[in-house]
Amino acid sequence: MAKQISELKLGILGGGQLGRMLIQEAVNYNVSTLILDPDPDAPCKNLANYFECGSITDFDTVYNFGKKADLITIEIEKVNIEALEQLEKEGKLVFPQSRVIRLIQDKGIQKQFFKENDIPTSPFQLVNGKAELVNVNFPFPYMLKQRRDGYDGKGVMKIENLYDVENAFEGPCLMEELVDFEKEIAVIVSRNSNGDVKTFPMVEMEFNAEANLVEFLISPSTYPADVQERAEKIACQIASALNITGLLAVEMFITKNGDILVNELAPRPHNSGHHTIEGNFVSQFEQHLRAICNLPLGDTRSRSNAVMINLLGEKGHDGVAKYQGLEKIMAIDGVYVHLYGKKYTKPFRKMGHVTIVDQNREHAIEKANFVKQTLKVIS
Amino acid sequence: MAKQISELKLGILGGGQLGRMLIQEAVNYNVSTLILDPDPDAPCKNLANYFECGSITDFDTVYNFGKKADLITIEIEKVNIEALEQLEKEGKLVFPQSRVIRLIQDKGIQKQFFKENDIPTSPFQLVNGKAELVNVNFPFPYMLKQRRDGYDGKGVMKIENLYDVENAFEGPCLMEELVDFEKEIAVIVSRNSNGDVKTFPMVEMEFNAEANLVEFLISPSTYPADVQERAEKIACQIASALNITGLLAVEMFITKNGDILVNELAPRPHNSGHHTIEGNFVSQFEQHLRAICNLPLGDTRSRSNAVMINLLGEKGHDGVAKYQGLEKIMAIDGVYVHLYGKKYTKPFRKMGHVTIVDQNREHAIEKANFVKQTLKVIS
Repeated sequence: MAKQISELKLGILGGGQLGRMLIQEAVNYNVSTLILDPDPDAPCKNLANYFECGSITDFDTVYNFGKKADLITIEIEKVNIEALEQLEKEGKLVFPQSRVIRLIQDKGIQKQFFKENDIPTSPFQLVNGKAELVNVNFPFPYMLKQRRDGYDGKGVMKIENLYDVENAFEGPCLMEELVDFEKEIAVIVSRNSNGDVKTFPMVEMEFNAEANLVEFLISPSTYPADVQERAEKIACQIASALNITGLLAVEMFITKNGDILVNELAPRPHNSGHHTIEGNFVSQFEQHLRAICNLPLGDTRSRSNAVMINLLGEKGHDGVAKYQGLEKIMAIDGVYVHLYGKKYTKPFRKMGHVTIVDQNREHAIEKANFVKQTLKVIS
Repeated sequence: MAKQISELKLGILGGGQLGRMLIQEAVNYNVSTLILDPDPDAPCKNLANYFECGSITDFDTVYNFGKKADLITIEIEKVNIEALEQLEKEGKLVFPQSRVIRLIQDKGIQKQFFKENDIPTSPFQLVNGKAELVNVNFPFPYMLKQRRDGYDGKGVMKIENLYDVENAFEGPCLMEELVDFEKEIAVIVSRNSNGDVKTFPMVEMEFNAEANLVEFLISPSTYPADVQERAEKIACQIASALNITGLLAVEMFITKNGDILVNELAPRPHNSGHHTIEGNFVSQFEQHLRAICNLPLGDTRSRSNAVMINLLGEKGHDGVAKYQGLEKIMAIDGVYVHLYGKKYTKPFRKMGHVTIVDQNREHAIEKANFVKQTLKVIS
C-alpha cells in the first residue's frame, strides 16, 4: 500500500472488546482508528481517534463511515456487505474482503463451502423455515442453527424430538448432525495480501453448557503433534481456499474416533485467541493488523502455557458492574486481567477475560480454577 | 481506597509517551484516564477519556484538573507542587506524594537526601549561580547540572576548564565529581501504600553521548548476583526512606573499582523500564498502577532477555515523521515496535522504542544492532 502503517486511518466496524484490544495494539504503530458502533457507550468509545455512533448494518451509514478510512476491517461479521462492496469498487481496501464476510455471515453457505472444498465437517441439511423440519429426513437429535446473525451462543438449539421442533427457530436454518466430540479445538490462521500464511498453535476449549460460551481455553494443546498438524493444515487450507486477507479463526471438533471436523469460522480476531496477548510472541490483534496492512506476519509460537477464562456476568446480577475478588487474583503471579469497559453487567455477558501464564501447565490450570472460583462480576 | 480500580478516575499530569503506555495498561482495568498536557497534540490526546490542553506548572490549572480525578499521578516531575499539596489537603490521593516530587524536582535536594540517608553517591557541591563556580574549591573536570527542569539530557554539561565556566548555566546548579564508571545501570522499584516493595531486575544501559540519552538497554544484567543484589537493595532503601507510593526509577553507576553510586531518581515509569512490557511478567506501567491503587504488586521477574532501543529522530530531519526500515525489522521474530504518536520528528526527539526479546542474550543484542542500523526516523 502507498501509505505507511503509521499514517493509516483504520476504520473498524464494531466497537466491542475485539476492537478495543485491536486499538491497544494499533496504538503501537501510530495507526489512527475510526470506530462505528450502534452503542453510544461501546468499549472502544474513548480509545478510538474517531467514534461514530451508528448502525453497522445500514448501507449509507457504513458507506459514509468507510469513506473516511484508508482501510476498513471488522470485529463482528454482521455488517452491511453491500456498502463494503461499493467501497471496494471505489478502491478502498476492505480486509477481510467483503466476499469472505458474505460467505461467513451465512452458516449455510459456510457449510456448502466446506463441502465444495473437501473440508471435513459434520453432515448437514439446509431448510428455509420451521415448517420444513418435520418433512426432512434428518435423525434426532440434531443441532439447529439460524443461518444468519447467531452470536455468542445465540441462534443455536438442540432438537431432540417433535416437541422441540414446535419450539424451533423460524426462518432459514441449518440442521447439523450432533457431533460426539472429545474436545473442541481452534486454530487461528493469518494471511496477508502477499499470500504469507502463519497459524497460531492449536488450542483446547472447555464450554459453559448453560451459556454456550467458551469459558476456559488452554494453549498450547497437548494432543499429539500429528493431530495438531492436521488441524493447522485444515486451517491453512481454508484460508487459501477463501483467499482471505486477515485473521481467520477456525473452530473444530476432535471426535471420539480421532477425526477433525470444522465447526465454524470467524474472519477476525476471536475469543479463542485472547491468550496470545501474553501467551505467544505475537498477539492475534497485532497479527491481524500485520496481515491487513500486508506487513510481515509475526512469530506465532507460544511463549509459555496459557489458560484463558472468559469473565461472564454472574447469574442474578443486572446493573452497574463490580468485580468481586479482583484484588485476590491480582496477588497471584502470571495473572493478567482484561476488563472490557462495559458499565453494565447481565447474566453471561462477556465482561472481560483473564489469562494465566505459567511454565508449568498444571499450575496454570490450578491458578485458572482459583481465578474462576474467586473473580465474580456482580452488580 | 473506597473505589474499586475499575471505577477510578485517574488524573495524569503530562500526556507524553509514558502517559500513553500507562493508559494502554489502565484500559485493562477499566480505569478512566484524564490527561493534562500543554501540547494540543500530545501522544495521549486520543487515548484518554478526557484530555485537557493546559499548563502542568500553573497552580489553578493543575488544581482544577486535579479536582476532576479520584487519584492523581505524574508522568513528568516538572509540575505545580503547591496545587498537588492543596489537593492532598482536601483529601485527594496524589501518588507519588507531592513531597516526593518536590524533593526529586530539585537535583540539589536529591543529592542532600542521598547524603543524609547514607545512599552512596558522587561528591557534590551546590552553587547559587555561575559567579560562584570560579570561587568554589572543586576540581576540573566536573558535571554541572541545573538543579531544576533538566529533562532528556538537557540541563547537563561537562565543565573541563575556565572557558567552559564562562559558558556555564546560569542559576542554581549542582557540581558533581565526574564518575569514572564502567557501566550505567538502573533498578526500578515499586512500593504500594501497604508498604509492599518489589524491584525489577537490574538493567544495563548504553548512552548516546551526543544526545545524552539512553540508546540501548539490556535486561537482565549479567553482573554477578551480589552486585545486582546490592543495586536492588539500594533502590529499596531509597524507596523506604522516601516512603514513596508508586514507581521509583533509580539510575546508578558501577565504578571501575566496583562501587555503586546513585545518579538520579525518577518517581514514575521510566525509560529504563520500557523493556518490561514484553520482557518481564508485569510491566512497569501496570506495576505503577498497582502501586498507586494499593493493589498487590505484580511479578517483576524477567520472562526472557530483552534489549530496548530508543528510536530517536535522525539528525538533519525536521518535519512530519516517516519510519524507514519498519517493514524490515517487523520481519524479525521477537521485535516489538512502540511508536509514540508524535507527528513531527526533530533530531534526537524520542519518537518511539523497540524491544527485542530472545532466549539467547547474544542473539537479542545482534537483532538490536540490526534494528538500530535499519530503522530510521526521517522526514
